[in-house]
Amino acid sequence: MPKAPRVSPDIAELARKVLARDRAALARAITLVESKKSEHRTRAQELLRELLPETGKAIRVGISGVPGVGKSTSIDTLGSHLTAAGHRVAVLAVDPSSTKTGGSILGDKTRMQRLSADESAFIRPSPSAGTLGGVAARTRESMLLCEAAGYDVILVETVGIGQSEVAVASMTDVFLVLMLPGAGDELQGIKKGILEVADIIAVNKADGDNLPRARAAASALKAAIHIFSPDQNEAAPVLTYSALTGDGIGGLWEAVIAHRTRQQKSGKLAEKRRTQEIKWMWTLVEERFQERIRSDAKIRARIPALEKAVADGKLPPAMAADELAQLIGLSDE
Amino acid sequence: MPKAPRVSPDIAELARKVLARDRAALARAITLVESKKSEHRTRAQELLRELLPETGKAIRVGISGVPGVGKSTSIDTLGSHLTAAGHRVAVLAVDPSSTKTGGSILGDKTRMQRLSADESAFIRPSPSAGTLGGVAARTRESMLLCEAAGYDVILVETVGIGQSEVAVASMTDVFLVLMLPGAGDELQGIKKGILEVADIIAVNKADGDNLPRARAAASALKAAIHIFSPDQNEAAPVLTYSALTGDGIGGLWEAVIAHRTRQQKSGKLAEKRRTQEIKWMWTLVEERFQERIRSDAKIRARIPALEKAVADGKLPPAMAADELAQLIGLSDE
Repeated sequence: MPKAPRVSPDIAELARKVLARDRAALARAITLVESKKSEHRTRAQELLRELLPETGKAIRVGISGVPGVGKSTSIDTLGSHLTAAGHRVAVLAVDPSSTKTGGSILGDKTRMQRLSADESAFIRPSPSAGTLGGVAARTRESMLLCEAAGYDVILVETVGIGQSEVAVASMTDVFLVLMLPGAGDELQGIKKGILEVADIIAVNKADGDNLPRARAAASALKAAIHIFSPDQNEAAPVLTYSALTGDGIGGLWEAVIAHRTRQQKSGKLAEKRRTQEIKWMWTLVEERFQERIRSDAKIRARIPALEKAVADGKLPPAMAADELAQLIGLSDE
Repeated sequence: MPKAPRVSPDIAELARKVLARDRAALARAITLVESKKSEHRTRAQELLRELLPETGKAIRVGISGVPGVGKSTSIDTLGSHLTAAGHRVAVLAVDPSSTKTGGSILGDKTRMQRLSADESAFIRPSPSAGTLGGVAARTRESMLLCEAAGYDVILVETVGIGQSEVAVASMTDVFLVLMLPGAGDELQGIKKGILEVADIIAVNKADGDNLPRARAAASALKAAIHIFSPDQNEAAPVLTYSALTGDGIGGLWEAVIAHRTRQQKSGKLAEKRRTQEIKWMWTLVEERFQERIRSDAKIRARIPALEKAVADGKLPPAMAADELAQLIGLSDE
């Protein structure tokens, strides 16, 4: 089985400090985990291995929603509600676009004013690595570090685009999708495929004049979800809340706990986490494979011509794939 | 750019016969494409390359639906409707389970009685290869052969499970999901994620006593789809039909044509097909990669221990991935 390498003294020291809930040490540990330098990667893995037995105890919640839904405010309100109830809350993010835009969705901590001043909360912006896989991998490892540092609730925020939701769903226990009421009973920016991952759906802005619209939106959503859930017991509940007033935030958290407790009792949670770990390993292998393709100049140079010939219908995809497989070194039969 | 190799005389002859709409030659060509023998693969690619300029002119329709929805009867009725209108119709299938069950969903041609006796129709069961990727690759290539043989409508059937729908959606222009009315206004066996791929949804058994239920089911579906479609112009239409009486089959086909024409006019169809080709090439590269892992005894032997250690929380997934990447030969830095 896996060898048990000796741990270098400074890593052992860092691990001790993380376990002792030293915020600065946790921040340093995350920086190590986020580093792309090869020697840092090795040391980061050493650290993770050291801390692994102390991880896994938190409630891991993925939070998604289109831009403008009020994710930051919602997390601020939910997080403050939780710390007031005695929880220690870590907020992380997966946002592969943070590299391009030069700032993370969480970069501006001022958008989580209460939580960023809260001693029981730890907020870390999305790592700005190149690929979704890289960003997600680092966030996932940061989550483990936060667990080792005694945070018992991890909120992982994701921008509501592309595959980042799937990545966050694959590292959390409960996946929460935030929505906005639109004009009439419409919903703004609802995406196909959201049902694949949503465990709980919550409509924000259920306050003041917006209340009737939020409720109408929730009813419409409920009906739609009813249609698309073969097993009604597994249909995602639809709630309303207000990040502004805090109304419904308690109920939202109760729904999270109810979902997780149900999963825990049925043994599904343990199974889900085991499956997540194994899937994660394979995702990383796949990442390495993609990286290999990206980093090989000869392969990279050949791709445009092959893609064009294939798209133009001049070369069968299988022939092009054969050539690529050969270049990558997959076909040594 | 891609070299233009000489074509061997027998392949050139086979290509000529396929183009001359020789059914027996088409069947032989498909058998060649379905073969897993390496020398057959090379010759199959030669044939495909030869025929590629004559492909792409058909209307490619993916057809999905849970077992019991009446897929075979529906295809029989739709296909007969089309041949009566002067079309030449090829029916193919992607069913990765056909290996295990020993028979394809299309193996029993008696379930398509009219169509199997129809001179203008060509029915080919799902290839019984091991993996979904392999089955889909072969069906996709068979589709091209059918196009070269002058079939102007290709219906690709898929069992409504797992990733086979995604595979079929990625090789067709229009994706049709067949449904059944359940008790009351419920729908049987509706799956999450169906909205991802469905261009048109059609509720079968809209006949006799079932008519009201079929209509109620369609209404409920329409409302649900409305909710989940940000752009109402792109919401999948929901129709009812009866494979038994043929009622609504004409309307169903009109919806297919309307969808495709819209895509064609906007330039989306051409773009979609180009993208499909390129994606397909990468899917095949990925397949080769997976095959490499599966075929290496040393790697295969190591996987269970690594997966267990990772699932048990004893080994960080990244460490396990590193070891696998090394075994696979991805990390030669």
